[in-house]
Amino acid sequence: MATQIQANLKKKNAEYASIFKEGHLTLPPAKKYAVVTCMDARIDPAAAYGIDLGDAHVIRNAGGNARDALRSLVISELLLGTNEILLIKHTGCGMLTFKNEDAHAVVEKNLGAAGQQELSGLDFQPFPDLEKAVEDDVKYLKASKAIPGSITISGWVYEVETGKVNQVV
Amino acid sequence: MATQIQANLKKKNAEYASIFKEGHLTLPPAKKYAVVTCMDARIDPAAAYGIDLGDAHVIRNAGGNARDALRSLVISELLLGTNEILLIKHTGCGMLTFKNEDAHAVVEKNLGAAGQQELSGLDFQPFPDLEKAVEDDVKYLKASKAIPGSITISGWVYEVETGKVNQVV
Repeated sequence: MATQIQANLKKKNAEYASIFKEGHLTLPPAKKYAVVTCMDARIDPAAAYGIDLGDAHVIRNAGGNARDALRSLVISELLLGTNEILLIKHTGCGMLTFKNEDAHAVVEKNLGAAGQQELSGLDFQPFPDLEKAVEDDVKYLKASKAIPGSITISGWVYEVETGKVNQVV
Repeated sequence: MATQIQANLKKKNAEYASIFKEGHLTLPPAKKYAVVTCMDARIDPAAAYGIDLGDAHVIRNAGGNARDALRSLVISELLLGTNEILLIKHTGCGMLTFKNEDAHAVVEKNLGAAGQQELSGLDFQPFPDLEKAVEDDVKYLKASKAIPGSITISGWVYEVETGKVNQVV
């Protein structure tokens, strides 16, 4: 028995597939770049960042976090030939609203001792200052020995209130 | 001096922002679900999976990998109230094309000893069998003590050749 969410996926996907004409696209991104951005529901990277199908890798996680994205970025660059990274965090991010100890307290309350143990020591990677978090992540990627020095890296903030993106670094 | 990629972001985003009308959306996803899928350039989750702006968290990484997504999923469920996960891998995935030792050899060749050391022991999470990888990841999430037992989890394959999605588990 499909849930409403699963039924929505099947129905909307059937409509998408019925007019799909892009089966010829190749595995490596045509425009050779990768975007790291947040999982936030209010962001549609293809539309908001102007990414045509087949053009770029899109990596998304809680906060648009660079450390979390490292495995994917190494694969993107070294195995699939991308040479530029756009790191885009956003206003109103959930990561601005809590601290690690808050998250661990919620884990303890909801998952008990077993969950607490499973996630013991996890850095949820919240941040108190948006622009500084963008700068820090770009700095981290530029300093990382896992990222070739030839890769161009820039940092941005997307405004969920206006749909606008602004360059930070 | 903006790169072509950065200039494209600015130009396309200015067009997007000029007709943007969704600044009222709230932080928690309206439909309370999270999608885990691949960073692959040939996937547009909003269009292909029928996700309206504001409805769902979208987590993307190399392979649509559940382990990599765990931090984001815990934040999505425990802090932002989602209660269903769609895990969607895809045909033609880059993760089907290499083994860990291949990736580490490429790292050594391109990044030298410093890069090799930085990524020493990293599991790049490639997989040889697509449907089995979907099953394994769903099994992993269902067994994880970091994911509440009340969360509904299903696994799917998206076909980059046809635009169709098929349920695996």
